[in-house]
Amino acid sequence: MFESAEIGHFIDKETYDQEVPALREALLEAQYDLQQQKRCAVIVLINGIEGAGKGETVKLLNEWMDPRRIEVRTFDRQTDEELAHPPAWRYWRQLPAKGRMGVFFGNWYSQMLQGRVHGVFKNAVLDQAINGAERLEKMLSDEGALIFKFWFHLSKKQMKARLNALKDDPLHSWRISPLDWQQSQTYDKFVRYGERVIRRTSRDYAPWNIVEGVDPHYRSLTVGKILLEGMQAVLNSPKPRARASNFPPLPDIVDGLSLLDCLDLNKQLEKDDYQEQLITEQARLSGLMRDKRMRRHALITVFEGNDAAGKGGSIRRVAAALDPRQYNIVPIAAPSEDERAQPYLWRFWRQIPARGKFTIFDRSWYGRVLVERVEGFCTQADWMRAYGEINDFEEQLRDAGVIVVKFWLAIDKQTQLERFQAREEIPFKRFKITEEDWRNREKWELYRSAVCDMVDRTSTEIAPWTLVEANDKRWARVKVLRTINEALEAAFEKQDKRNKKSKK
Amino acid sequence: MFESAEIGHFIDKETYDQEVPALREALLEAQYDLQQQKRCAVIVLINGIEGAGKGETVKLLNEWMDPRRIEVRTFDRQTDEELAHPPAWRYWRQLPAKGRMGVFFGNWYSQMLQGRVHGVFKNAVLDQAINGAERLEKMLSDEGALIFKFWFHLSKKQMKARLNALKDDPLHSWRISPLDWQQSQTYDKFVRYGERVIRRTSRDYAPWNIVEGVDPHYRSLTVGKILLEGMQAVLNSPKPRARASNFPPLPDIVDGLSLLDCLDLNKQLEKDDYQEQLITEQARLSGLMRDKRMRRHALITVFEGNDAAGKGGSIRRVAAALDPRQYNIVPIAAPSEDERAQPYLWRFWRQIPARGKFTIFDRSWYGRVLVERVEGFCTQADWMRAYGEINDFEEQLRDAGVIVVKFWLAIDKQTQLERFQAREEIPFKRFKITEEDWRNREKWELYRSAVCDMVDRTSTEIAPWTLVEANDKRWARVKVLRTINEALEAAFEKQDKRNKKSKK
Repeated sequence: MFESAEIGHFIDKETYDQEVPALREALLEAQYDLQQQKRCAVIVLINGIEGAGKGETVKLLNEWMDPRRIEVRTFDRQTDEELAHPPAWRYWRQLPAKGRMGVFFGNWYSQMLQGRVHGVFKNAVLDQAINGAERLEKMLSDEGALIFKFWFHLSKKQMKARLNALKDDPLHSWRISPLDWQQSQTYDKFVRYGERVIRRTSRDYAPWNIVEGVDPHYRSLTVGKILLEGMQAVLNSPKPRARASNFPPLPDIVDGLSLLDCLDLNKQLEKDDYQEQLITEQARLSGLMRDKRMRRHALITVFEGNDAAGKGGSIRRVAAALDPRQYNIVPIAAPSEDERAQPYLWRFWRQIPARGKFTIFDRSWYGRVLVERVEGFCTQADWMRAYGEINDFEEQLRDAGVIVVKFWLAIDKQTQLERFQAREEIPFKRFKITEEDWRNREKWELYRSAVCDMVDRTSTEIAPWTLVEANDKRWARVKVLRTINEALEAAFEKQDKRNKKSKK
Repeated sequence: MFESAEIGHFIDKETYDQEVPALREALLEAQYDLQQQKRCAVIVLINGIEGAGKGETVKLLNEWMDPRRIEVRTFDRQTDEELAHPPAWRYWRQLPAKGRMGVFFGNWYSQMLQGRVHGVFKNAVLDQAINGAERLEKMLSDEGALIFKFWFHLSKKQMKARLNALKDDPLHSWRISPLDWQQSQTYDKFVRYGERVIRRTSRDYAPWNIVEGVDPHYRSLTVGKILLEGMQAVLNSPKPRARASNFPPLPDIVDGLSLLDCLDLNKQLEKDDYQEQLITEQARLSGLMRDKRMRRHALITVFEGNDAAGKGGSIRRVAAALDPRQYNIVPIAAPSEDERAQPYLWRFWRQIPARGKFTIFDRSWYGRVLVERVEGFCTQADWMRAYGEINDFEEQLRDAGVIVVKFWLAIDKQTQLERFQAREEIPFKRFKITEEDWRNREKWELYRSAVCDMVDRTSTEIAPWTLVEANDKRWARVKVLRTINEALEAAFEKQDKRNKKSKK
């Protein structure tokens, strides 16, 4: 795999000087066109052998192209803030928007390689990391990103020569790599596991390019031309990247019986019982959120439901139990321009709570498989793949200690009608009812099957859905609070058990 | 994930009897159309809880549809023959051809679930298996297969009731499941790991369908309708399943220097040296193939090269060292009709040697990225994904103990010309030269870059390419033999080391 990057590629200065001006101009133009058309985000991953010219190349790209549209990101040690979030969070928050280029130095590949080379884990775990990288890149690509992966290579001999040369160069001596690169065992391992990673993650939508790093002219021209051809290929392709799906739609339920039918929507609480139970559950939540064990967790609640099902009221009862510094309520409406320039999960990743914190989503990433599906804002292929992407997303949250509690607040059609009418009559509630609500109501059945598919495909042991009978608001509010409390307690107990085990 | 398959779905007999005739007719028609058009292979995977009606449903499908076009395959214990091959071999040899339906009972999912449930391995290994299943299904789907995955579900209570009922039924008592299903722990684990598997492998191109298994009417109608809608979706979609790629093509080498340029094609052997070395290497090969350690391995050699580079002659020198019962030479030409009705790797999977055996491929699966690429017999998206698919394939071989040795026999253009002319002059060699050879020669440069890309992307530590300087036939033949011998010795040594380690 690395053979042809050890044969001494070389471009003489004259040829180089001749070729560069045209290449620069073309790169600038492509960059400009991509930005004007907001066609896609360009993600450039920089990996490879120490001393093979990674830094120099990135520096040059910034000279050749318009650096205002390039974001160079280095990912070295995780910051405190990053450590308090799921591992992928640091990458999500640095994703370039459509029309821009992000150069990722020290990305997910460096992390997995370093872990494996230094024996932090074995191949099976490396393979899990590889799998995660594949899913991430597939999703980014499906969302329209153009991904370039460069491996800058040196043979072992070349690397040693290069590190020696740098040592004696006062301009570069600060760049001397960590000691371990000078050990030939590290090189061997790095190349061996590097090959495994490259082999498994070189896919048509995000292939690796292995670049011999010895000769700067060769290296620079190679990278420049690959970037140029890639960007031009996108610019010359018909827009948008059509992905006709001929996979069958999700099947209807043949006996028409859905989970929603099994709910007894008439469950209710008397006023006195409600008052008592509400206060009990709120006190319990307040205590749990202050529990020491919460420091190793974060909490996310997702509120979805029919229009007028009482999401707002439930959220207020949850919030009322807590210190405002502990939680953050995120209402989700149609995406902003900035958000539309990113993969759809991006705006949720930004709102992931740090450890110890609590985020309440009033509507959520499930918009993709609900409103976007029903209204045709995305293609069938898009919402079909979203189930898997969302499960991946929530699994990453869970792995990082985030407790995810998801509610669907269900009311029947008649109750909705009464609430809509009441809203129109009560002046201070009038802002809560719009034409759109009435239109959505006409699509009741479509939403209904979207909800059933959503629950079927995303209610997992990691993040189960709770269906809440919400014709009676009191019942719903208490059930919401109680479910959150039970989820917290279950997570804490699991943690206690794990601690006990590891103490043994 | 299983919630809505535990709510008591039910279809009354009257409705069922009303719906079945139309469904059957439509299924038959779809099946017929698919077969006539050879649109795609249909693969149906049957999994789920014991007693949930898997067998009954498959039986029914055979009644409803034309059973001559359905192949039901059960994969239970591996046969001796299967154990002597890589694990996926058993599935490959049972793949349905385009236009046919294969129902796989006890497939790759059952294997991984049983292993995990019975504690044979942990989650990291389960995830590797999951990953393997995903790659396999993605490839099958890219090659045009329509994949249905059914999970027949029962709640724990339902399962127990069902197993009890069956026990008392003389007609079915033979079907009583292995003891362990009656333990509720097994059920819990099976469902827990089942969810993990379903969550991660439910992709838009091969989604899982979870079917409640209690009521036979509901179960049967559900499966029938899902199959019907899926087949109709394919029949109604434009043909062929167009997958326009706007990924950039592979970059040219900017300094024009390729691995092939680094070969010293003039390397040669004097006749006497040749005779001596040839005999030495042949004797060595003969000994190695009879070595006891060969029983745990199989050997594959791949011969690719320029036309007239001497593949045939080299192969004869290898074969000459061996007992004809030990090896099998597989010449690869354009695929037959049967082969075209299968994924392109299928015809090679069929020829994988069992343990202790040796298969020589005269041309190979690399045709996909050589002739098919250059001649445009497949799309860019097809050959681009092939690099990864081939690496996966060879990794599976390696994991099963197969030693893969790959040769590219390289000659220069002048040497080829001389050999072509000689062939035309010598009567008994005239059959070896055709118009096509001359046409291929005009595409010398295209083949050249295809070869370089191939080596760059598929020369791995698992299965490295050996470039053979073949202007001198003697040199080439000895190098081929020596390389095979070294690969065998290296594999044997590795095995010795492993044995020593495990004895410690």
